[in-house]
Amino acid sequence: MHTATPDALLAQLHWRYATKKFDSSKKIPAATWQAIEESIALAPSSYGLQPWKFVTVADPELRTKLQAMSFKQPQIVDASHMVVFARKAEVTVADVDVFVARIVAVRGGTAEALKGYRDMMASAVSNPDTLPGESMDTYTRAQTYIALGFALYTAAQFGIDACPMEGIEAPKYDEALGLTALGYKASCVATFGYRSSEDATGKLAKVRFAHESLFIRK
Amino acid sequence: MHTATPDALLAQLHWRYATKKFDSSKKIPAATWQAIEESIALAPSSYGLQPWKFVTVADPELRTKLQAMSFKQPQIVDASHMVVFARKAEVTVADVDVFVARIVAVRGGTAEALKGYRDMMASAVSNPDTLPGESMDTYTRAQTYIALGFALYTAAQFGIDACPMEGIEAPKYDEALGLTALGYKASCVATFGYRSSEDATGKLAKVRFAHESLFIRK
Repeated sequence: MHTATPDALLAQLHWRYATKKFDSSKKIPAATWQAIEESIALAPSSYGLQPWKFVTVADPELRTKLQAMSFKQPQIVDASHMVVFARKAEVTVADVDVFVARIVAVRGGTAEALKGYRDMMASAVSNPDTLPGESMDTYTRAQTYIALGFALYTAAQFGIDACPMEGIEAPKYDEALGLTALGYKASCVATFGYRSSEDATGKLAKVRFAHESLFIRK
Repeated sequence: MHTATPDALLAQLHWRYATKKFDSSKKIPAATWQAIEESIALAPSSYGLQPWKFVTVADPELRTKLQAMSFKQPQIVDASHMVVFARKAEVTVADVDVFVARIVAVRGGTAEALKGYRDMMASAVSNPDTLPGESMDTYTRAQTYIALGFALYTAAQFGIDACPMEGIEAPKYDEALGLTALGYKASCVATFGYRSSEDATGKLAKVRFAHESLFIRK
């Protein structure tokens, strides 16, 4: 079951960094990309509700348009692949029922047998002030960062560079990607590809606070 | 550089699940746990500011106390290890300067040379309405979920079970762990250990929506 040695896994997490400049001539092989996507789909979420959509943007013209909504950051156009992590604006009881139907489709059984679980989730999403973060938007936004973390982690393990990007004009993204009409909002972006040899930041040591500062022991 | 095959990596992500019942007799080996901690410390954050603390709770009495603040969920007391992911309540310009000092300590150079970067970060944290999520609390909360994702991902790769847990009375956690006095707030919890053979949920198929539903292609 232990598929990776700790040293190998951590070496790749040390190796990764927020890539500032990609080599735009290099493309991620399809099989590698599919595995990154699969890892994103496998990210856990609150109750398993998956209140998100992942927008992959391949179209160069749309990339150029999004770059103008991203403080002109070059990764948006230079990266091999790009994903916008979007959260559902409102998770409703109807969404809970869609999820329950999915559980039944995957595992068998009946929705009736899941009524207790369904009602608990329905109550939670109907009372956003009781959700973690005390608002629907804060709650679903946080979930998308788990998926972001999974995406970055997988890429690093495959030796694929990536850059998590929060510097976007999210409302403009929502319109440009048709997310508003679907009831979703862009939380953040990740770009993926291969670091350019000209990216000086790729040669700098990683900066983290010491464990004594980050961890509190009880 | 490619340390893991896609199949092996994804197999462990399929294998993991939100463990409902741990075998309380089994403890994670120290070296394995240290690697999980190291991966948490390596999680990326906005600007690299690391606006977080990770509270490891080993004390059984404190675990029992926290269980009462966690809707009596058994994982809090049964798990081998437990981490509370806490966000900084207010990230200030002083925090930016501590981070800049850390960059200089790790990489050399001078704080003066980083003044442009420093001023950009200082401006961002001084204007919370311009931050992603439009509030300091939403912003820092989301960051902690990246670290949560890294922790869960690493555990899965080592064959260590885990449960992400949002069902906590966070303000009570803040007091019990002394976080309020330090200026931090609990976002979420993860428990780690080994699934009990009695945990029926560990035998159920993983439920995810189909890729056609999760991914939008542009």
